[in-house]
Amino acid sequence: MEPVRDIYPSRTGECEKILNRMDPVVYGDSTSAPEFGLKQNQIEFYEDNGYLTIPDFMPEVVPDLIAEMDRMKEDLAGDETLVTEPDSGEIRTIFKPFAHSDVVDQLSRDPRILDKVRQLLGSEVYMMQSRINVKPAFKGKSFPWHSDFETWHVEDGMPRMRAVTVWLMLSENTEYNGPLFVVPGSHKKYVACSGKTIEKNYETSLKKQVLGVPKPETMKEVLANSDIKGLYGGPGTLVFHECNLLHGSPDNISADPRSILMFVYNSVENRPVEPFGGQPPRPHYLSNPDVAPLKPIKLS
Amino acid sequence: MEPVRDIYPSRTGECEKILNRMDPVVYGDSTSAPEFGLKQNQIEFYEDNGYLTIPDFMPEVVPDLIAEMDRMKEDLAGDETLVTEPDSGEIRTIFKPFAHSDVVDQLSRDPRILDKVRQLLGSEVYMMQSRINVKPAFKGKSFPWHSDFETWHVEDGMPRMRAVTVWLMLSENTEYNGPLFVVPGSHKKYVACSGKTIEKNYETSLKKQVLGVPKPETMKEVLANSDIKGLYGGPGTLVFHECNLLHGSPDNISADPRSILMFVYNSVENRPVEPFGGQPPRPHYLSNPDVAPLKPIKLS
Repeated sequence: MEPVRDIYPSRTGECEKILNRMDPVVYGDSTSAPEFGLKQNQIEFYEDNGYLTIPDFMPEVVPDLIAEMDRMKEDLAGDETLVTEPDSGEIRTIFKPFAHSDVVDQLSRDPRILDKVRQLLGSEVYMMQSRINVKPAFKGKSFPWHSDFETWHVEDGMPRMRAVTVWLMLSENTEYNGPLFVVPGSHKKYVACSGKTIEKNYETSLKKQVLGVPKPETMKEVLANSDIKGLYGGPGTLVFHECNLLHGSPDNISADPRSILMFVYNSVENRPVEPFGGQPPRPHYLSNPDVAPLKPIKLS
Repeated sequence: MEPVRDIYPSRTGECEKILNRMDPVVYGDSTSAPEFGLKQNQIEFYEDNGYLTIPDFMPEVVPDLIAEMDRMKEDLAGDETLVTEPDSGEIRTIFKPFAHSDVVDQLSRDPRILDKVRQLLGSEVYMMQSRINVKPAFKGKSFPWHSDFETWHVEDGMPRMRAVTVWLMLSENTEYNGPLFVVPGSHKKYVACSGKTIEKNYETSLKKQVLGVPKPETMKEVLANSDIKGLYGGPGTLVFHECNLLHGSPDNISADPRSILMFVYNSVENRPVEPFGGQPPRPHYLSNPDVAPLKPIKLS
């Protein structure tokens, strides 16, 4: 197999630099909107800003999802896809929840979400990664600025920018409980980071990311022309998050955990190749080897 | 000298508990408002919430104060009252700036501030502590929930709750640059903390406070009945912060440092006694031995 040319080199040992994005943000043809597609102004907002929030999108599914979390916590005890707090046993992360829960699987293929995703990516899509994340009260730690695509490219071999993370708020996300901060518009550039990927980087990077984190000087340059925007909302709020958008998060000193369910959809025309960082691909729960197109469920 | 009875015991080795406040919040007689006093509704807000923000109070003094910071950074090089960043040399804290700058000294005795402080505390006041604090961009660390009074009582011997911190924003304070979060109303209770004060606790507590920090279970109880409120504003915004109000701060992951000038005013009827924690008093730049009443300047 001919190796794919790396148009987004990062962690190659070179100095950090800001490159241009070489890919569209929106691949869809807006003239043929699907039944549950986004409106033109929503698509334009996403294209310009790299994210789109739809408040109060599906509050009715949240109680079932929370019940599923509790069930999975019991059923998955000891499994590598369940990460709990060492002291309290509380859920920190459930990886691949769609594989363990029909409710989650159905939601991931709900046409009210899937139509929009396929519209943005202009193709069939598969589930590249999925998790439930809980940022615990009082001790949830901050997360430095980074682009998810940088990691997925270097560590998972995602060739181009043609993926979107869709996440649903399961608890109130406020300015006080360690919310997600994004840099609107930052998805139009690409920060090629310094350093080199080490073996099994994911074993530590999920707790404290060091590689793939732009330096303060670089972020100062990025933020000289952009503001920060915090993504807040009540349970059931949906967020579309372009794969290359820079984001970070302060710590959670409040008494309220911040919980979200994340689906990372990747275009079937953007299936992964050999990871560009030269390490073996990450485990199945971080880079799903099942790259078959998702079939939308029928709404009853 | 008869030892003063400790009505706010903390860090005595007992279990943590929430006690009632035994002191008024506002000592002043509101029927005799001074020339630059607060209005009745402002006093009531402060009494209920434990803080009061006056947006856009003195934006005109900020450029001079920033020039003074730069000058003090040069003049105080090597002095214990100047703390700089080890890597960049940027200012982190200037203690006792009133002692090194006429501009700061004059401001601390400006009747537009001092009238309000004396009105709240119902007496003459002295400067118990003062600093300029800069929370640096990207790396400014979070600060856990605590009451300043608890430390001042245990480590400096402040007998009663009759002090107020007045702080002026020197840079924009936003939801993104590690702002101060307060728990409105929390000043009406007192958290008697567990643990015991160690010798020279201040040498580490200014970087990372461990003693005098209520446990998560206690904060959960406090926050069950109160929301968190972030204090934001532009340069020149003034904040009155009751000495026993619980406050904390998330880290600063933004590109903007957060700078403030703080004056801690204590009533002359509340002068410190032997510290209740049994250790010697803290250095002069944390607990000012000059307890003479401040004389207001004449406005020109």
